[in-house]
Amino acid sequence: MSKSWTRTHHLGEISERSIDETVTIMGWVHHRRDHGHVVFIDLRDRYGVAQLVLDPAISPDAHQVAESCRHEYVLAAKGRVRRRPDGMDNDSIRTGAIEIEVHQAKILNPSATLPFQIQDQSETHENIRLKYRYLDLRRPELRDALVLRAKVASSFRRALEYERFMEIETPYLYKSTPEGAREFLVPSRIHPGSFFALPQSPQVFKQVLMVSGFDRYYQIVKCFRDEDLRSDRQPEFTQVDCELSFVGQEEVMTLMEEITTQVIKDVKGLSLPPFKRISYTTATERYGTDKPDLRFDLPLVDLSSIASDTEFKVFSQAISLGGIINGLVVPENCGNLSRKDIDALTEIVCQHGAKGLAWAKVKEGQGVESWQSPIAKFVGDQAIAEINKTLGLKPGDTIFFGADDYKTVKQSLAALRIELGRILQLYNPQSLCFAWVTDFPLFETLPNGKLAACHHPFTSPLEDDIPLLSAKPEQVRAAAYDLVLNGHEIAGGSIRIHDANLQNQVFQTLGLSPSEAEETFGFLLEALRYGAPPHGGIAFGLDRLVMILAGATSIRDVIAFPKTNKSSCLMTSSPQEVSSDELRDIHIRVQKMSLNAKET
Amino acid sequence: MSKSWTRTHHLGEISERSIDETVTIMGWVHHRRDHGHVVFIDLRDRYGVAQLVLDPAISPDAHQVAESCRHEYVLAAKGRVRRRPDGMDNDSIRTGAIEIEVHQAKILNPSATLPFQIQDQSETHENIRLKYRYLDLRRPELRDALVLRAKVASSFRRALEYERFMEIETPYLYKSTPEGAREFLVPSRIHPGSFFALPQSPQVFKQVLMVSGFDRYYQIVKCFRDEDLRSDRQPEFTQVDCELSFVGQEEVMTLMEEITTQVIKDVKGLSLPPFKRISYTTATERYGTDKPDLRFDLPLVDLSSIASDTEFKVFSQAISLGGIINGLVVPENCGNLSRKDIDALTEIVCQHGAKGLAWAKVKEGQGVESWQSPIAKFVGDQAIAEINKTLGLKPGDTIFFGADDYKTVKQSLAALRIELGRILQLYNPQSLCFAWVTDFPLFETLPNGKLAACHHPFTSPLEDDIPLLSAKPEQVRAAAYDLVLNGHEIAGGSIRIHDANLQNQVFQTLGLSPSEAEETFGFLLEALRYGAPPHGGIAFGLDRLVMILAGATSIRDVIAFPKTNKSSCLMTSSPQEVSSDELRDIHIRVQKMSLNAKET
Repeated sequence: MSKSWTRTHHLGEISERSIDETVTIMGWVHHRRDHGHVVFIDLRDRYGVAQLVLDPAISPDAHQVAESCRHEYVLAAKGRVRRRPDGMDNDSIRTGAIEIEVHQAKILNPSATLPFQIQDQSETHENIRLKYRYLDLRRPELRDALVLRAKVASSFRRALEYERFMEIETPYLYKSTPEGAREFLVPSRIHPGSFFALPQSPQVFKQVLMVSGFDRYYQIVKCFRDEDLRSDRQPEFTQVDCELSFVGQEEVMTLMEEITTQVIKDVKGLSLPPFKRISYTTATERYGTDKPDLRFDLPLVDLSSIASDTEFKVFSQAISLGGIINGLVVPENCGNLSRKDIDALTEIVCQHGAKGLAWAKVKEGQGVESWQSPIAKFVGDQAIAEINKTLGLKPGDTIFFGADDYKTVKQSLAALRIELGRILQLYNPQSLCFAWVTDFPLFETLPNGKLAACHHPFTSPLEDDIPLLSAKPEQVRAAAYDLVLNGHEIAGGSIRIHDANLQNQVFQTLGLSPSEAEETFGFLLEALRYGAPPHGGIAFGLDRLVMILAGATSIRDVIAFPKTNKSSCLMTSSPQEVSSDELRDIHIRVQKMSLNAKET
Repeated sequence: MSKSWTRTHHLGEISERSIDETVTIMGWVHHRRDHGHVVFIDLRDRYGVAQLVLDPAISPDAHQVAESCRHEYVLAAKGRVRRRPDGMDNDSIRTGAIEIEVHQAKILNPSATLPFQIQDQSETHENIRLKYRYLDLRRPELRDALVLRAKVASSFRRALEYERFMEIETPYLYKSTPEGAREFLVPSRIHPGSFFALPQSPQVFKQVLMVSGFDRYYQIVKCFRDEDLRSDRQPEFTQVDCELSFVGQEEVMTLMEEITTQVIKDVKGLSLPPFKRISYTTATERYGTDKPDLRFDLPLVDLSSIASDTEFKVFSQAISLGGIINGLVVPENCGNLSRKDIDALTEIVCQHGAKGLAWAKVKEGQGVESWQSPIAKFVGDQAIAEINKTLGLKPGDTIFFGADDYKTVKQSLAALRIELGRILQLYNPQSLCFAWVTDFPLFETLPNGKLAACHHPFTSPLEDDIPLLSAKPEQVRAAAYDLVLNGHEIAGGSIRIHDANLQNQVFQTLGLSPSEAEETFGFLLEALRYGAPPHGGIAFGLDRLVMILAGATSIRDVIAFPKTNKSSCLMTSSPQEVSSDELRDIHIRVQKMSLNAKET
């Protein structure tokens, strides 16, 4: 840039206060309109838009430059800020009261015709937009989402550093660990046949840092999982990762609630009420999930006891096979559901494993008479009376039923509940409802009967439950806590085991042999023997949090350069094949496996 | 942690103002001394050390706990802050005027006997300390270096965000690019035979972000190079990476100088003078290197013209073979050099390729008489007179000579100069001397005669030199700038090419065929066609900067979990072998190459 063309203002700092100032501004040609001889250009930069007036009577040269400008040309303009003529104000933009009378203009770079219109999201396939990500990022929604993301990260850092958390970087070249998700491996050139792995989280490093005495650690850090992707998963994702010493569960939760509240205040200007708290058991019983959306209630209610009062096979069989019956009541004042609504809801529960969706609309009357429902006569007077009474049903109420094994009932009704909340508008979509979920089980039982860690194998049992560890491990509760926002898990944490013997016991309970435990986590076990303080922590999923705060529906919309759900980057065409020389250097060769070959 | 044992203070916030307060503190047993019946414990945490007094007369229970404490036990103590008895103050610690009379104590975790003493750096091999990195990190030097590192990062973020730089994360799973250093590859599971590569820098992504209109980007980001390691290299290292739009070289340098000055003010409390500026040519001519240590002068002086006046073969042969003769004068007032010093200096220049080190001490007299030097009589009266006159030598001065090819002379005398600065104490080791080096050549000629980019292939030529690009590319200067601190390159940057045609021309000059350029950087070339603003940036090497600021000699001392120079992590034993199942999943197999096999 030559000296004479130094930008003096960006477009967020020009306003009525700038009137009569001479400014040099630079940006993109957002719109161009010819009004008679005069050309009007809306010039855009990251901070705003301003109207340029290029009048041949003022500067024939500048006017000529404007004449040759097309959409998305990069333009520099020098001129005087002036008030717009009466009645020409544009209230929809911040600079709507002023315009810039241009005396000199220069095209800094032309632009070819874009492959799609920037504003025109719906018309263009996402794959095209991902290929030209640099153009799609000019869309206000994407730009604003990334600006919000930067603000959230910055606010977290400020709040954490204020609380003495210290940023410490941990390695990306780590090693493969047997638990958890599938990992990305990195062949070593210097150690033939050996591999690094990209970390799923800095978990063990942050614990080791507590052993070192760093007291409070944080890092906003990329983590990696080589899993099949969904709309809210990416092979690389970002955590706000924290760990602190000399604390218990209550102290971590209190401090993290303060920090989260501060961040939301910073970035959204909202003052949050104290976070709700709910146990894992209550959450799954009442809302069918361990990440309940608590912006509305609409609880699941256990109706298993009515099975004995009915001959309706769907109900009685569910119970006789060891399952449950749950009901979900939509009170009259929540709105009316059409037959079409109910069909759509049926589809949703079926997607979540249910075989159908039984329902009843309550009307005046007794017994079978009181239900408008395809199942009324099968359920029978006695059970209907029992249900009406138990749930205090009133005419106009609608009730839905789930009857199946525990998991299917809870999952399908949880999905039903979320959909009802949405279509009946039971909450303000702008509202933010944070809740802590606590008292998780320490272990879950896998289909093969083995135990796995619900969070990770370093999670401490609740002190009261330690005696159960050997005899009834499945009953042991964890000193773990998740933070849930509007039905999404946005953070998870726990108090860690700081006693080497207890850690060994948990590894054994998980079926890790002493030699496996030693090989993989030997350094952690050893570290715990040299004066490990009590410690715990938490990790926030930054992508998901920002997605919710931005009102986006996919984390791809809050990541500058996301991968597709086939784990590719369409912009850079990665991954790619590499030369055999490169592979030889790192002591590997390609051996493609078809699915068939794998099975034999 | 049970409620009754909540930490109320850390050890950095207890002082004389706390006297008579009751505190609960937690930390590590740093020292333990028995004085009669009373036990004194120095308790340590990240913030400081405080003396606990455990007197059986005050609390027999607490005293008993103290009796069983050993070094590095984790201890909680409750008690009253009191003034130390007269004459017992310890001025070397912040809490030296007070002590804590302990009423209750509890061991939170014992510690096995450490494999080495924390303070005892020199006695323990670095490999042992790397294996037990969590213990070595308790050493005050390492802890302080990481605290400093966190401060530097935080200060950079604050200063950059104040200047509207916005943090945007770029991907770690990128792709292999043909230029630059060797990369780490990551096999793809979903795309058999394809590979991601870990990025050497986010260069292309940050340029693409400028095309998107983000105006000012920054990121503190890990970068990866699979190179053989030296003391100031690691396979993963951290950059403070910046890019900005609508700027020229002068604006980037001015802004980055302000930001750096602010960071140094924040973390060291120093007000820096304006940074020196020196061209690449002057730096190499005068100091023999493009990263000169400007804390002292001691310049190299060209003496090639004296070759015609002497029959000294070392001099005349160097010139006849196309080389140069340089001198380096140590004025009398800089100190005296012994014969032993000169022997040591000779060794240094020989390590840098010189065949020996010619020198002379100047004394009273004329011609040969005026030099005390093994080479005086060979150089002869005429050349000596010429040298004395040209350099204005005075009795007591010492002069060293280099005569060889250009590179050897400059490199060896540059090393000599650095060593002279150190042993003669020509500068304050605490001082920080920042300097910009500019006007680099755009290309360097490789031994095979091909051109390579000095910085990277996106660097813009200086506008004045663009006409030379096709005819005399080796004469083209780059719009590039390095920031040098005390003889280390701590940042490098450039204005980038924003014109697709110019970028294509540079790729061609580098010998990249249009199809290679298209395959690797097609998306960047295409992005430049859709309204790319003029832009440029810089990247600071955070590890090296912190190393200098911390007074450390290796970047391993400012990285929490460094790799060895064999690219291993001794703490976690990575890299490691993995199962053949894991390799099958990612479509590769190991094929170890011995060096011999490679050569055939």
